[in-house]
Amino acid sequence: MQDEQRRYLSVGKERLQDLVAAAHAGGQLREEHLGQWCYRRVVRSFRSLPTGTTLFGDTLVYGYPKIGRLSRLDTGLKVQFSHPFWVEEKVDGYNVRIFQHAGEVLAITRRGYICPFTTDRLRDFIDTRLFEAHSELVLCAEVAGPENPYNRDSPPYVREDVGMFAFDLMRKDRQGFLPHHEKEQLLREYGVPEVCQYGRYEVEDLPRLAGLARELDRTGREGIVLKEDSAQDRRAKYVTGRINLADLRVGSAAMKQLPAEYFTQRILRLGLFLEEHHIERTPALYRELGEALIEGVLEAVARWRQEGKVADHFRCRFHRKENAELMLEALYRLLGKGHVQRRVLEPRGEYYVLEFSKALPRTTGLLAHLLRGGLVFD
Amino acid sequence: MQDEQRRYLSVGKERLQDLVAAAHAGGQLREEHLGQWCYRRVVRSFRSLPTGTTLFGDTLVYGYPKIGRLSRLDTGLKVQFSHPFWVEEKVDGYNVRIFQHAGEVLAITRRGYICPFTTDRLRDFIDTRLFEAHSELVLCAEVAGPENPYNRDSPPYVREDVGMFAFDLMRKDRQGFLPHHEKEQLLREYGVPEVCQYGRYEVEDLPRLAGLARELDRTGREGIVLKEDSAQDRRAKYVTGRINLADLRVGSAAMKQLPAEYFTQRILRLGLFLEEHHIERTPALYRELGEALIEGVLEAVARWRQEGKVADHFRCRFHRKENAELMLEALYRLLGKGHVQRRVLEPRGEYYVLEFSKALPRTTGLLAHLLRGGLVFD
Repeated sequence: MQDEQRRYLSVGKERLQDLVAAAHAGGQLREEHLGQWCYRRVVRSFRSLPTGTTLFGDTLVYGYPKIGRLSRLDTGLKVQFSHPFWVEEKVDGYNVRIFQHAGEVLAITRRGYICPFTTDRLRDFIDTRLFEAHSELVLCAEVAGPENPYNRDSPPYVREDVGMFAFDLMRKDRQGFLPHHEKEQLLREYGVPEVCQYGRYEVEDLPRLAGLARELDRTGREGIVLKEDSAQDRRAKYVTGRINLADLRVGSAAMKQLPAEYFTQRILRLGLFLEEHHIERTPALYRELGEALIEGVLEAVARWRQEGKVADHFRCRFHRKENAELMLEALYRLLGKGHVQRRVLEPRGEYYVLEFSKALPRTTGLLAHLLRGGLVFD
Repeated sequence: MQDEQRRYLSVGKERLQDLVAAAHAGGQLREEHLGQWCYRRVVRSFRSLPTGTTLFGDTLVYGYPKIGRLSRLDTGLKVQFSHPFWVEEKVDGYNVRIFQHAGEVLAITRRGYICPFTTDRLRDFIDTRLFEAHSELVLCAEVAGPENPYNRDSPPYVREDVGMFAFDLMRKDRQGFLPHHEKEQLLREYGVPEVCQYGRYEVEDLPRLAGLARELDRTGREGIVLKEDSAQDRRAKYVTGRINLADLRVGSAAMKQLPAEYFTQRILRLGLFLEEHHIERTPALYRELGEALIEGVLEAVARWRQEGKVADHFRCRFHRKENAELMLEALYRLLGKGHVQRRVLEPRGEYYVLEFSKALPRTTGLLAHLLRGGLVFD
């Protein structure tokens, strides 16, 4: 229980209300309305409230904290961890927090918006009796797969639709996570699907962990998250080399829409991964990198020629048509109505299928300027 | 003479003095001292004075203006030019302006600093009687080659040392350039080496010009500069696809030191060049791109491991030892003394050879952090 006490930063309700009032006064807390839902959202981290912290009435769901990235296991384990740590798969999807509020089970995104898609579908993946028995719990999970409304990339083992993979449990009104064993017990009890658990490692297990990283690299997984088995619960993430190739392929079709650092960081990470793991720099690997970067550019050019703009296309499945419409509404507000195009919303089999596109206005603007013969002063 | 009058923006001496006084008051004009030289330099463009404009006493040497970059010839020629234009080679070196002041012939860089190296060596390339006969002239040239104090890249046809390639003539105290024929006549009269002149083209000559661009691409040249044969003297530059590979190879060893856009712009330009010229995207080309990006990263890592820092190494040849020392002095001031390391200064054959290195503190700092196991929150 001592661990437990240190792991949680529970603030008295009164002090919490002061904090919320101060965030509101500072313009960091915004009211959101979507459908019948009404809540408040921390738009930029404020004192102890991380970005994405969300308030439903007086109930606080803390934002999922940022996890620092290790570029090297060889030196990183020693520097970052002083206790054994749990290692789990880092799934290439989007982060949600799921909890019960006023009888409904809701899913909110990293930034704290209700996600109508995830909310619509979450019962396909989890037994919500978890929240009936433990109404104070907040489930943290990754949603990943080719048919999701946010990401163009997905893990190789989700061939269609999406999957949900839990990796943490929090409690409402508290910062910090449940300890590993307690989390595992609850997730298993309710059959909640989890990210792959690779077990408990120590700093001395570097060779074994490096072997795992190389295996994940070969099989197209994104990487791992390391969680210290201690009251401090120190964490770090580490990605494989190849995931950078996948990211660059997707990113190069959205150049200028993404920050330029998106590209340089991934090239650097790939280089450091190859160096750390003594992976041979084969012509095939180099070719893949070159292809990832150029094919995206040419894809964007081709789209601009065909459609006069560059946009990303998405498809996802809903149980309820109203949730699909709320998803569009949410995207309109997030990206601007002119940048989201509803293409299809129709019943197919047991689902309503929504197809839509998101414009890439910066990519479109840059390509239009360049392909029409404009000058650039750089 | 009408062309001539429009081509030049000659400002009366009195108005010029007002302008200079205003630039000084606004902090845009800085006094520079190096050796016995003392001059003033426009550090940021101010009204009609471009960055790099330099004042020797009351004599103004206008900064070399920025030339806009075309990403496409197919559409660009039509949009940018309404008259025939001269096409010349864009040489991959550094830009200098050379002129006579108080009996000395001096070379200043794009940013308006006296370059002791170029000043020391310019008589090897040009007949300075040009400036005796025409003391008002300012010669604009590219200095390129493997042994230069600024750039790691150089054109394939300069195998050692440096070469100098003139491309414009200006007049002191005036903005704008001499017309093509007048410039050519003067350069030929004094045997000043020029950038390659490819002749006069019209917008309709697109196929021929595109053929030239592909030929330059195959032979590893940087690109072309297009100069309208008209009073407006409109200009544009256009680079080959392959030069981007060379730039990326050099840049990837200095990642983080360079802006991230350095990389994305070049990847995009390469893609657009391939598309415009219907160049087959071969595995060999992709491999070259991938290799250019990763080998640089690994080179930087290897250097950091060997030397505890990442630095670029330079060597150049001087006639006079004092000029080599002034070059170091200039670099100390430009980059900070701690970032420039003198390695060798000794007579070899008919020259003094200076070897020095320039630290890449951002690259060093980033690699040190990552390779030592630091976390990044990105």
